[in-house]
Amino acid sequence: MKLYNTLTRQKEEFKPINKDRVNMYVCGVTVYAPLHMGHIRTYIAYDVMAEYFKNFLNYNVFYVRNITDVGSVVGDADQGEDKIELKAKEERLHPLELVDRNIKGMWEGLDAVRCARPNISPRATMHIVEIIEAVQKMIDRGFAYEIDGDVYCDVSKIKNYGILSGNTLDKLEAGARLDIDDKKHNPNDFAVWKKARSGSVLKWNSPWGLGYPGWHIECTVMSTKYLGQTFDIHGGGRELAFPHHENEIAQSYALNGTQPVNYWAHTGMLTINGVKMSKSLGNYITVEDAINKWGAVNLRWFLAGSKYNSPVNIADESIEASNAGLGRIENMFFNLKKNVGNVYNEELSQYLDDLAANFKNEMDDDLNTPNAIAAIYDFVKQANIIIASGNYNKQNVEEIIGYFKLVDKVFKCFDFLNDNVKTNNKEEQVKQLIEKRNEFRKNKDYKSADEIKQQILALGAEIFDNKDGTTSYKLK
Amino acid sequence: MKLYNTLTRQKEEFKPINKDRVNMYVCGVTVYAPLHMGHIRTYIAYDVMAEYFKNFLNYNVFYVRNITDVGSVVGDADQGEDKIELKAKEERLHPLELVDRNIKGMWEGLDAVRCARPNISPRATMHIVEIIEAVQKMIDRGFAYEIDGDVYCDVSKIKNYGILSGNTLDKLEAGARLDIDDKKHNPNDFAVWKKARSGSVLKWNSPWGLGYPGWHIECTVMSTKYLGQTFDIHGGGRELAFPHHENEIAQSYALNGTQPVNYWAHTGMLTINGVKMSKSLGNYITVEDAINKWGAVNLRWFLAGSKYNSPVNIADESIEASNAGLGRIENMFFNLKKNVGNVYNEELSQYLDDLAANFKNEMDDDLNTPNAIAAIYDFVKQANIIIASGNYNKQNVEEIIGYFKLVDKVFKCFDFLNDNVKTNNKEEQVKQLIEKRNEFRKNKDYKSADEIKQQILALGAEIFDNKDGTTSYKLK
Repeated sequence: MKLYNTLTRQKEEFKPINKDRVNMYVCGVTVYAPLHMGHIRTYIAYDVMAEYFKNFLNYNVFYVRNITDVGSVVGDADQGEDKIELKAKEERLHPLELVDRNIKGMWEGLDAVRCARPNISPRATMHIVEIIEAVQKMIDRGFAYEIDGDVYCDVSKIKNYGILSGNTLDKLEAGARLDIDDKKHNPNDFAVWKKARSGSVLKWNSPWGLGYPGWHIECTVMSTKYLGQTFDIHGGGRELAFPHHENEIAQSYALNGTQPVNYWAHTGMLTINGVKMSKSLGNYITVEDAINKWGAVNLRWFLAGSKYNSPVNIADESIEASNAGLGRIENMFFNLKKNVGNVYNEELSQYLDDLAANFKNEMDDDLNTPNAIAAIYDFVKQANIIIASGNYNKQNVEEIIGYFKLVDKVFKCFDFLNDNVKTNNKEEQVKQLIEKRNEFRKNKDYKSADEIKQQILALGAEIFDNKDGTTSYKLK
Repeated sequence: MKLYNTLTRQKEEFKPINKDRVNMYVCGVTVYAPLHMGHIRTYIAYDVMAEYFKNFLNYNVFYVRNITDVGSVVGDADQGEDKIELKAKEERLHPLELVDRNIKGMWEGLDAVRCARPNISPRATMHIVEIIEAVQKMIDRGFAYEIDGDVYCDVSKIKNYGILSGNTLDKLEAGARLDIDDKKHNPNDFAVWKKARSGSVLKWNSPWGLGYPGWHIECTVMSTKYLGQTFDIHGGGRELAFPHHENEIAQSYALNGTQPVNYWAHTGMLTINGVKMSKSLGNYITVEDAINKWGAVNLRWFLAGSKYNSPVNIADESIEASNAGLGRIENMFFNLKKNVGNVYNEELSQYLDDLAANFKNEMDDDLNTPNAIAAIYDFVKQANIIIASGNYNKQNVEEIIGYFKLVDKVFKCFDFLNDNVKTNNKEEQVKQLIEKRNEFRKNKDYKSADEIKQQILALGAEIFDNKDGTTSYKLK
């Protein structure tokens, strides 16, 4: 298994620190706002990674993903207001009300796209004692200094600063300037403890007065606490590589003199029709809307099928094409069960073996899911010819179902493999019912049409009969 | 509005500290095991209380319910092993894995029975800094002492110890003995900070060495932090009155010299067929099983309809009777909409006014939900006669629906008021579909029967055709 390592800028053979076990940390959500599409993109990618390690490579995976419930500053800047404090003020809520609400929404979104819960999801505020200890240790070891209740990491003391991102101090200092109100020694020093702003709620007593942790130190403290001073894989979105992850490396060096992570993995950026998604550009799609529009399974199939560390572009046509591919797989299984004959087909069996080999090769190559899925589509094409002939038997069917069930432990989109479920895709169900209802309406059988409407409502969908005779729906 | 106050042992007129606002704290779940029926009983009761204050008395309610994720000791004893540490060891999990899993299950159960989330649900481990400060303050004020890394509250210094439970020190000391390995001065002193046991995971550095908080101090710290030194209502199960709540009062006295709570409310015990529910007695029902068996709405209607501070007994017959009552209300609305005539009926309007007055009287009398619901049933009986005659008009219908929608903000069981939902009771839907399917099967229309089966499966239910011709079902 090879993984691209941002640290070395190359694909490397994955070697775990502990035989049979993968210790993995992924930067989690800052719970100041509802989940956005970038979160879904990133966490589906790491869900695929964790499930592949578990189900194909037989590792025990211990997956830690934090929840940032304090310390992340507006604009991900070093100075400024805590995102949660600011948003809570705007919405006239206690910061914890905002946090609780967004944690609820976060789980709803991630559960919907079938990301398994990480083994543990520690919250930053559960680690204030340990964070204060870490900051003190950085001061004691000469890597941090206090000014007026703020504590900064002195990056000039960090030998390898820039090792992950390439942003070495000489490069950074060329362009850096201290703001007039900056109290820190050097422009690239970063806060590990911040003085509480007046009127703030999220604050704790510390040796440096009332304050709250810097964002970067939280991840260092939590990853070290749960996974040790050096662990296998650290993931996160591409945009976190600098300064967040660079500063995590700096902090580990300051605290323990260690490299914290063997493999740094970063997910590629998400765009909408080629443009970065942002509220100001008006192309912002909430996760809820995206799920309502495309369905959670289609969304997952599309995102899981894009290379995790390449950019991914969300566009109707691409999701529809991906959805159609999933439909071709479903269709193959429909015919596979229907046309089964009596004689074992060696050729079909060979195709399946080829698929298994190709799939694993592609996934072992830095989780190349687009190629792995292409191998599935190739198999479908080959198999369909044999299936049409009916020259195969139950054993063939069982072999194919068995293998696809294994693949589905990673992709989690093949609901049609479950005999009890026609389709688990709620949107598909609603669409089919609307068609059925429209036929009844055409035949003026309004009683039956109304019964179908009740079934649609029971699925949690609303429908609207448009003036042009079409029917729109909205999934709740 | 009168509330029974455990502190004064009488019903008292409710007077909030801040006009228009109710500050309310309820002891939450210790997340070492799945939710049990006692939790559901208690949190439905406080949900009804909070919703009544909001919707009928127009208060702003700020409802805090903690999550105990460390510090609760096996058997709720003062000495012994932390419940979460022990259970995690048994299940070979990191304690946080166990905690995360049980928090997930807790929300699933409480959401299912439609308890609104509290405004905030703080976790004990988010307050270790504040807990250590509180323990230090108790020592500094002479109310606590340290021995070998444990810190105990010295109850002999608490003037009014026993004020809530009646367990005054003279009564307690008559029966109390120090265990041979007890280090504390007096048998009734209780731990506010505990030395970490060897091999434990949940522990923090403190002025007294590595340790973790006592259970009682957590609630004092969290309620004070979010609601102030004295707040309006403190709730919890009856069994928490002593020692947990008595010790909360002691701690507030030790810390601030204050009475922390104006109204102490305690929910009555839950029994199953007259017997206390316990795993060892083999009559343990998980919340999931209870919801599958009776349906979340019926369970809520039954529990909300029992007096919150009286014992409640779970028995099939009682839940079925309660369910039948809910069915009578649904049936009234079915006929009400069907039989509507053209003339406004003053008598029906008067009945509704009477109901509104009686309902409020009963709810204002310490939330007497059984009597309040009896008033609803009386109205249904009176209204049904008029409804049968058809002598009422649309305005009557709207008045009745409007009032029941208000009532439903508290009870949350009248799904039939929503025009779009035939019945939101999944079990009811499944039952009706099974009946329909069996008719098709009787008529040998297996295609239609199979379509119905797909609808049942889509609802997340499994069905089993028994040899005797009946069909069983299981909701997932």
